[in-house]
Amino acid sequence: AKTKKVAVLPGDGIGLEIVEEGVKVLKQAGEQFGYHFEVEHALIGGGAIDRLGTPFPEATNQLCRESDAVLLGAVGGPKWDQNPPELRPEKALFDLRQGLGLYANLRPASLFPGLEGSSTLRSEVLKDVDLLVVRELTGGIYFGDKWTEEKEGGATATDTLVYHEYEIERILRRAFELARGRRRKVTSVDKANVLESSRLWRKVAKRVAKDYPDVELEHMLVDNCAMQIIRRPKDFDVIVTENMFGDILSDEAAILTGSIGLLPSASLGEGSRGLYEPVHGSAPDIAGQGVANPAATILSVAMMFRHSFHDEEAARAIEQSVRQVLAEGARTADLATSDELALSTDQFGDWVVEVL
Amino acid sequence: AKTKKVAVLPGDGIGLEIVEEGVKVLKQAGEQFGYHFEVEHALIGGGAIDRLGTPFPEATNQLCRESDAVLLGAVGGPKWDQNPPELRPEKALFDLRQGLGLYANLRPASLFPGLEGSSTLRSEVLKDVDLLVVRELTGGIYFGDKWTEEKEGGATATDTLVYHEYEIERILRRAFELARGRRRKVTSVDKANVLESSRLWRKVAKRVAKDYPDVELEHMLVDNCAMQIIRRPKDFDVIVTENMFGDILSDEAAILTGSIGLLPSASLGEGSRGLYEPVHGSAPDIAGQGVANPAATILSVAMMFRHSFHDEEAARAIEQSVRQVLAEGARTADLATSDELALSTDQFGDWVVEVL
Ligand SMILES: CC(C)[C@H](C(=O)O)[C@@H](O)C(=O)O
Ligand SMILES: CC(C)[C@H](C(=O)O)[C@@H](O)C(=O)O
Repeated sequence: AKTKKVAVLPGDGIGLEIVEEGVKVLKQAGEQFGYHFEVEHALIGGGAIDRLGTPFPEATNQLCRESDAVLLGAVGGPKWDQNPPELRPEKALFDLRQGLGLYANLRPASLFPGLEGSSTLRSEVLKDVDLLVVRELTGGIYFGDKWTEEKEGGATATDTLVYHEYEIERILRRAFELARGRRRKVTSVDKANVLESSRLWRKVAKRVAKDYPDVELEHMLVDNCAMQIIRRPKDFDVIVTENMFGDILSDEAAILTGSIGLLPSASLGEGSRGLYEPVHGSAPDIAGQGVANPAATILSVAMMFRHSFHDEEAARAIEQSVRQVLAEGARTADLATSDELALSTDQFGDWVVEVL
Repeated sequence: AKTKKVAVLPGDGIGLEIVEEGVKVLKQAGEQFGYHFEVEHALIGGGAIDRLGTPFPEATNQLCRESDAVLLGAVGGPKWDQNPPELRPEKALFDLRQGLGLYANLRPASLFPGLEGSSTLRSEVLKDVDLLVVRELTGGIYFGDKWTEEKEGGATATDTLVYHEYEIERILRRAFELARGRRRKVTSVDKANVLESSRLWRKVAKRVAKDYPDVELEHMLVDNCAMQIIRRPKDFDVIVTENMFGDILSDEAAILTGSIGLLPSASLGEGSRGLYEPVHGSAPDIAGQGVANPAATILSVAMMFRHSFHDEEAARAIEQSVRQVLAEGARTADLATSDELALSTDQFGDWVVEVL
């Protein structure tokens, strides 16, 4: 059996509940596909602040570095919202992303059969939607210097958006590589008519594209892209963009297909190690009730098999199981219509394990 | 008769065609509501670059400063896309916005009866949508220092996002004032979990809100807002946000209701002078064919009456006329289904004048 070490970081809110369903599916798939998993849990986010005084304890950092993959639930909640930046749960995400060099954030969005009705977009617009947002995750305005100066006439706040050519190049190459396994189209999104960093981005995109003559490259301005994602979503294959634009556009794309409770993500660096987490947040409003949708976390486990263990077969088996239980009518509260009986978080997870 | 001077800047592409329909309606409404208009045309954008070597000639600048209002078509086109920043058509927009101190960009989006079918969103989601994006227009990353350094290991590009407290305060006050004439709800959009400028934004929003106890304030993260605009658009009244977020979200909101050919905008400063323009661009692909939709420009003229001439009656009369011709089936090519006969740009304009 292949031995893999997986760090499990439940985090806050519903993270604690959904991650356990992900682990269930991980173990089941591991048995079927010949893995021996060493699964170890650690604190991150608000819970870590409360117990250890820091959102990203050194022990958690160590565990992640020793692991082949990290499964994360979600972090954050109103309790820590007023904290200074260094003591906010999100700080752990930034440390984790940058510390492990996870510069490529992959967020696929496609429609699950049977769920056409849960989107606010018309079914005919959604049919065949299958896009992948590739977001740069360790550069840009998230990590640039930022400061506030208090002066007599009031405060002045500054953030800096910095991109080095090599950062742009590696994320673009990743996007082109991924497009080769899909419909061979890359939409590079920038704001080249305003930003210096976007002009560099576009220049690098044009240069890198020459190495991928079999992949079509189009440039699109971010404002236009925010429109086109709603207007003609099926025209997109791979969308690649910088950190902040990717944050906005991937959430927009996520909601296209219905519930954000269905959308997984992978954050990758140069090696095989990756961080896998649902796109949604910690949803403090429904935490602790056992009603959260674990599908996004389970689908993140599928991405773990694909990208960290290079096991497409296991990845597809998990995805197929989720598709099947949804087609068979499995619905957690976020997707259930009033006349259906909503499943609990672990009922949904059990059903997936059973089908798998 | 009230005498008003109006600068007309057709710009590039379809700007040349649609602006004339706006002027027609301006003149007709002027006659009916007792105005004497001095209308003067000037060059801006690509056309100005070609003829005068600069996108924003001093004569155009002078004319705008002497006018009570400016009607702009659109600027830009592939011909000038490779120009250096100083010689790009967009540069004229930045000069115009900042030169006239037009810090508040208002972009309303609501559904026109009869056009439910032209949106990709379901009709029931769109019903009663009536939102106004108030975008800060003269600060932020658009106007901060930007530079590229070429080094041995590759280039590094930097943009800076700077906000002064007074810039945030005045746009927020404007949003609260506008909300008072509407449904009394302000959604302030930021990325306070990442950006220093957003943390200042949120702090100022909380302070300013105390002066408007009759208006509800909610804070929303920009990524979440990009989702919620699609998920539950009718829950929004006034959305106020910084320059770049406003650029993205207002385009997203624009497309909600169908054609971007229907959406007007106003850019305002401290006094009554304003800049009025359609939200859409110069559409070089359809320029010169007389098929562009002039509705957004005509509705921008309505906003001119409202915000620069403080004439709500004339504004409503124009808006009502556009609504009526649309309800009567007037459709330019962007909205016509194959079996309808599409109107030309000037046929649509004439119809509005007639109804008015
Ligand atoms: C929590 C927040 C800082 C984070 C981000 O903006 O990166 C989240 O929105 C995400 O997309 O993972
Ligand atoms: C043309 C471009 C620079 C401009 C902007 O980003 O402000 C446009 O998108 C707009 O929204 O008016």
